[in-house]
Amino acid sequence: MSIAPAGMDCVQTMLCGSSANENAFKAAFMRFRGNEREAAGIGRLDFTQEERDSSMINEGPGSPELSILSFQGGFHGRTFGALAATHSKDVHKLDVPSLPWPSAPFPRLEYPLEENVDVNRAEEERCLAAVEQVFNERKGGLVKGGPVAGCIVEPVQSEGGDNHATPFFFIALQEICNRHGAAFMVDEVQTGLGASGMIWCHEHWGLPHPPDFVTFSKKTQVGGYYYRTEFKPNMPYRIFNTWMGDPAKILHLEVIMDVIRKDELIEGTKACGEVLYQGLLNLQKQHPEVLSRVRSAGGTFCAVDAVTPQRRDELYSRMLNLGVMVGACGSKSIRFRPPLTFTAKEIHILIDVMGQAIHDTAPLRSAL
Amino acid sequence: MSIAPAGMDCVQTMLCGSSANENAFKAAFMRFRGNEREAAGIGRLDFTQEERDSSMINEGPGSPELSILSFQGGFHGRTFGALAATHSKDVHKLDVPSLPWPSAPFPRLEYPLEENVDVNRAEEERCLAAVEQVFNERKGGLVKGGPVAGCIVEPVQSEGGDNHATPFFFIALQEICNRHGAAFMVDEVQTGLGASGMIWCHEHWGLPHPPDFVTFSKKTQVGGYYYRTEFKPNMPYRIFNTWMGDPAKILHLEVIMDVIRKDELIEGTKACGEVLYQGLLNLQKQHPEVLSRVRSAGGTFCAVDAVTPQRRDELYSRMLNLGVMVGACGSKSIRFRPPLTFTAKEIHILIDVMGQAIHDTAPLRSAL
Repeated sequence: MSIAPAGMDCVQTMLCGSSANENAFKAAFMRFRGNEREAAGIGRLDFTQEERDSSMINEGPGSPELSILSFQGGFHGRTFGALAATHSKDVHKLDVPSLPWPSAPFPRLEYPLEENVDVNRAEEERCLAAVEQVFNERKGGLVKGGPVAGCIVEPVQSEGGDNHATPFFFIALQEICNRHGAAFMVDEVQTGLGASGMIWCHEHWGLPHPPDFVTFSKKTQVGGYYYRTEFKPNMPYRIFNTWMGDPAKILHLEVIMDVIRKDELIEGTKACGEVLYQGLLNLQKQHPEVLSRVRSAGGTFCAVDAVTPQRRDELYSRMLNLGVMVGACGSKSIRFRPPLTFTAKEIHILIDVMGQAIHDTAPLRSAL
Repeated sequence: MSIAPAGMDCVQTMLCGSSANENAFKAAFMRFRGNEREAAGIGRLDFTQEERDSSMINEGPGSPELSILSFQGGFHGRTFGALAATHSKDVHKLDVPSLPWPSAPFPRLEYPLEENVDVNRAEEERCLAAVEQVFNERKGGLVKGGPVAGCIVEPVQSEGGDNHATPFFFIALQEICNRHGAAFMVDEVQTGLGASGMIWCHEHWGLPHPPDFVTFSKKTQVGGYYYRTEFKPNMPYRIFNTWMGDPAKILHLEVIMDVIRKDELIEGTKACGEVLYQGLLNLQKQHPEVLSRVRSAGGTFCAVDAVTPQRRDELYSRMLNLGVMVGACGSKSIRFRPPLTFTAKEIHILIDVMGQAIHDTAPLRSAL
């Protein structure tokens, strides 16, 4: 709880990111149905016998037609519920039955941001209108999969190609969720714990209200989610499993947090990220025929696009051979995920090696 | 792999029992669709563009209508896919959307087994006929949820009330699955690692062929599943996640296995289980108005029913107050899950305390 996002008063540990997201989904569905019961003048937990019986055979009304809205290009895990909210690569999903849950487009921004303010705003409004449309067309419960009880979004679509959006988009998305009584869920499994220069990447947005759920895993060693009291299922054993996380991993996290604080690693990452971002902008200026869309979500959470998927793969391999490991994501993006202990010195090496790799791969490319 | 069930040549670790079951489901679906493609004269992995595109929006044919058959009273976990195969208590499922997957009745045996051979055989045949019917009515793909690609069963329905079936049932169930080209999946999350007097409880059945999947977790410290080569997805990243289990937990398991072997704990559990079973039979003979259906799945994997849910709860509480913790499951069962280090001495204490608790709760009961 010492690193809980502001305004979030509860935490539930789980083992991994998928189970964090899935249990957050379950809590969102329980809250949504509880609200519906309350609106109908009955108790939040006053289950009918028909609900009890039908739930046991996976049918409504006990197993309701309700859905989670997610974004095209998003990744939230690979268990069945999390996978239904995942839309980054078909290899994750092919041949696996899914839930009839909707997706909406995620903004595709033009860079540099300061030269593309209007076109990016229009792009984000297009995506928000699509979100609004999904909510509205499902409201009556006539569309397969039913009304939207929650919407999950990554601060940066990492698996999907390091796609960013502006604070305007996320603030408006939260407003739509709130207005429709759906949970606003932020998946910080990849963005959480400092790489963005803040403990939680969504802290960059300046949301007027805290999110309803913030899920975490990876760097935090143990999965789980922060949430607000009103999403507590209020009945034992609705959210439950054998291990409910792993206490030993929380001890690891405590030690990691001690080091992060003592060595001021988040402040360091913020400073170091500025060096990385400027270095990438310089490289892009020198090689506009190879690099585009240099972007940063704060800290070292940066990415750049190569001109083609092939050139991206060549750059990736060449950099690896030169001793620098970067990440490939989306069809032609390179993402940077240095550890929190990186300093400007390592960033300069990284930028030098990338420049070298651009040079080394150029003849190869023209030869092909 | 040193404790792999006979004939199972692959293992995949996961973090928990739910993700073990869900990834086994995914592998079963991939095998089923691969077989369908092969039967249609195309390669197992020759995905069409339509499949690729439709999978990304959770629709067929890429996200196919296929299902996992499970049993009423069964418990396989609480993430969305595992939960769709779980039918033990409504509190697990209420308000959570589900997949349209079928369930079949699990045998309800009469005890003592030797006096109820014919009636139990008829009961198991009734359940097998229901299984066969589910396979047949879904074969054409016209029923919502589609054909059955796999069937998952617990050797003992633990959460559901410690319900047992005879080897005849499981052998026939495997035969039905094989005949319909569906995976036969045994969930040993609760029964695995020795408590039944064998490392794996299904080893008691004498199956003519190994199961297609055996899932494990809990006592094994790490989740996962054994499987046979033909269920390998044969393409990278189809079954994948961040941690793919936890190597440190496998080291724990290795030490645990060393102790189990050195101290001959499974042989000890087998002997100790016989003392427990006979002790329970004696108690039942002394208190036929309170206890019934004493049953054993081998080793200390025993259970008994109380006459009413209320008496069960009283017995449970009284035993706890007398210093013995047992498990309550189903509506009126008490299950025994002593550790592998139990000896006849502790079993005698347990039986004495249970006799005392039956005595102590009797006046309470008549007073009510």
